[in-house]
Amino acid sequence: MSAPPTPYLRVDVGRLQVNIDSTAARAAAAGVALRPHVKTHKCVEIARRQVAAGAAGITVATVGEAEVFVEAGLDDVFVAYPLWVDERSAERVLALAERARLTIGVDSAEGAANAGRLLGDRVAALVEVDSGHHRSGGPPERAAEVAGAGIEAGIDVRGVFTFPGHSYAPDGRAAAARDEARALTVAAAALRAAGIEPSVVSGGSTPSLADSDTSVLTELRPGVYVFNDAQQWELGTVGQEQISLSCRATVVSHAGGRLVLDSGSKTLGADRAGYATGYGRLPEHPDARIVQLSEHHAVVDLAGAPLPALGSRVDVVPNHVCNAVNLVDDLWADTGDGLVRWPVSGRGRNS
Amino acid sequence: MSAPPTPYLRVDVGRLQVNIDSTAARAAAAGVALRPHVKTHKCVEIARRQVAAGAAGITVATVGEAEVFVEAGLDDVFVAYPLWVDERSAERVLALAERARLTIGVDSAEGAANAGRLLGDRVAALVEVDSGHHRSGGPPERAAEVAGAGIEAGIDVRGVFTFPGHSYAPDGRAAAARDEARALTVAAAALRAAGIEPSVVSGGSTPSLADSDTSVLTELRPGVYVFNDAQQWELGTVGQEQISLSCRATVVSHAGGRLVLDSGSKTLGADRAGYATGYGRLPEHPDARIVQLSEHHAVVDLAGAPLPALGSRVDVVPNHVCNAVNLVDDLWADTGDGLVRWPVSGRGRNS
Repeated sequence: MSAPPTPYLRVDVGRLQVNIDSTAARAAAAGVALRPHVKTHKCVEIARRQVAAGAAGITVATVGEAEVFVEAGLDDVFVAYPLWVDERSAERVLALAERARLTIGVDSAEGAANAGRLLGDRVAALVEVDSGHHRSGGPPERAAEVAGAGIEAGIDVRGVFTFPGHSYAPDGRAAAARDEARALTVAAAALRAAGIEPSVVSGGSTPSLADSDTSVLTELRPGVYVFNDAQQWELGTVGQEQISLSCRATVVSHAGGRLVLDSGSKTLGADRAGYATGYGRLPEHPDARIVQLSEHHAVVDLAGAPLPALGSRVDVVPNHVCNAVNLVDDLWADTGDGLVRWPVSGRGRNS
Repeated sequence: MSAPPTPYLRVDVGRLQVNIDSTAARAAAAGVALRPHVKTHKCVEIARRQVAAGAAGITVATVGEAEVFVEAGLDDVFVAYPLWVDERSAERVLALAERARLTIGVDSAEGAANAGRLLGDRVAALVEVDSGHHRSGGPPERAAEVAGAGIEAGIDVRGVFTFPGHSYAPDGRAAAARDEARALTVAAAALRAAGIEPSVVSGGSTPSLADSDTSVLTELRPGVYVFNDAQQWELGTVGQEQISLSCRATVVSHAGGRLVLDSGSKTLGADRAGYATGYGRLPEHPDARIVQLSEHHAVVDLAGAPLPALGSRVDVVPNHVCNAVNLVDDLWADTGDGLVRWPVSGRGRNS
C-alpha cells in the first residue's frame, strides 16, 4: 500500500517483533506470566502477536477496550482499573464474562462490595494496592479488608496487583521495582493472614521491568515495551534501536531558522514529563529538540545541523506512545515489504 | 437521549450560543470579518451556528478538516497553515476549490512558488508572518518576497495573516495584540510597496481577542471562544460562567484521601502549559487541583473539602479544549431538554 499523507504513525514490524519476543522470553525464563497492557497499541494484530509469543492473556484499562479485544477473540482479559460498576456497566461486564475469563480491579471495600453485588462470582477481582505511585490503590496492609468485602458480596477475589508508575523518573526504575515487590509482599501476606490464598500477584511497568522481583510477582503487565518511546529512551530503559514506532512528518517551514514539522500535539500527544528534554525526539537527529509543540506544528531546534529541505520527511518519536496511538485510526506497519494498515480498534474506547 | 457512560464531553448549548453570538456581535460592531477556527470543535453543528451568527467563513488547520466541512456545505474555507503542497495534496485541494472558495497559507517564497506551481489561480493564498509566537510565519518586513514568489507562480495572493499565540501567557494578552497589529501593519505595508493591495489582514486568538486592533485587522480567527477552557479561565480571558464544555467523570477511588476520577489524559488531553495550576479544573470545586494525570485517572487534591462519594459524578474542564475534543467521536450537547449527540466529524483529520 502506498504511504498515507503525513503525519502518520509508522511501525517497524521487525523491531516490534523483537520487543514482543524478547519480553516474552524474559518472562518465561523467570517463570512468571506475561499479561501485556494493550492500551498502548489498542490493536488486535499486535495483541495476537503477543499471545502467539506466549502472553497468558491481556490487560486493558476500560470495559470498552475489553469489548474490542474479546470481540476479536482474546479470551482472558484483566481490566486493571478500580472500576466503579453500575447497572449499565455490570450488564456489559457480565456479557463479556460469557465469552472470556474476565477479571477487574477493586481498591476499596466499598468498591469491592459494589462489584460483588452487581457481578457476583462470574467475574474475578484483584485488589489494587499503592506501591508508591500514589494514584489509585489502597494501602497494602489493608488489602484483606478490600478482599473480604468483595468475597462477602460474592465476587471471586484472586489476588493483588499494583502499578509502580513512579518508575517513570530518572534513576527511579530499580527503586520502584523494590517498592513494588515490598507492597505486593505485604498485600499478599495480608490476604493469607485472612485465609485468602492469592493465586495472582501482579505488577510491572516498562521502566521497572528489568528489575521486577519475580520471586514475589506471578504476573507482569507492561504495555509500552512493544513500541517504546522518547520517555523510555530518555529514562534509559531502552536504546534508540528498540523503538519501533515513530511519526513520519513533513517539513513545512524554516521560519526563524528552525525546522517546523506537521506533527503536532494532535498526532504526538501533548505529554511532557518533568524529565523530558522536549516534546518528542528525532532518531536521525539525536541532538535536536522539539522546543515548541502546537496542534499541527512541532518546532525543532536542530542544534546547528543543516535544516532538511522544505517538503522532505522526518521521523519523530513521541514522548508517550500510548497517547499518540490513541489519536489515530490506523497504524502503518512497515513489514520491510511495504506498508500495511493496522486499525487501532480500541481508539477512544474510554468507557 | 440517555447519558453515555463516563467520561464524556458535555456541551452546555445555552452558554455555547452566548459565546458564539457575543463574539459575532463584537466583530460586527468593529466592522471586521469573523472567520472562526473550527479545529476547536471539529463539529458541523457548531460551524453552522457560527455561520448563522454571521461568520464570513471558517478557518481550518488541515486539508482533511477542510474536506469534512466542505462536504457539510461550508463554502468559504481558509487553511491557516503553511501547507507544503505535493501532487497528492494538490489534487485534494483543487477538488475542494471546485466546491468552495478556498484559501491556504504560505510562509516562504519556496512554499508559495510550490503552491502556485501545483494549484495555480484556482486557490487563493495569504502570507503568514510571525508576530511574536515564533512558530511558523516569516518576518513581516519580508512578506512581499513570499507574496511575489506566489504571484509569479500563479497563485492569487490576497493578503497576510498571523497567529499571536504568545497571547497564551499570564499578562500577555494585550501585548500580543499590540505585536499582532504591528506585524500585520508592517506586512501589509510591504505588500503595498510591492504593488500588491492586501484585501485580507487576518489575525486573532481567543486570549488576545478583546485587545485586537480592528483598525489594522480586517478579519479575526479565534477558535477556543466557543467553549473556552481551564487555560482561558486561568489566563483571565473569561470567567467560569463562559465555559461551555466540560468532561463528566465518575469518582472511582478515594485512595490516599484524594479524589480519583476516570477522566484521564485520553479524555482531557495531556496539555499542561507552564502557567497552568494543574491538569484541568473542577467548576464546582474552584480550589481543587488535578495534581496527577494518567491515561484514565485524574487525581484531585480537594484542598480539604469533603470527598464526593464513590460512584458520584464530577465535572472537569480540560486545560486545552481543542485537544480534548479531538479525543472523542461525539460531543453530548445539553440543550436543557436532554442530551443530543453531536459528531466530532473532523476528529483525527490531521492530514
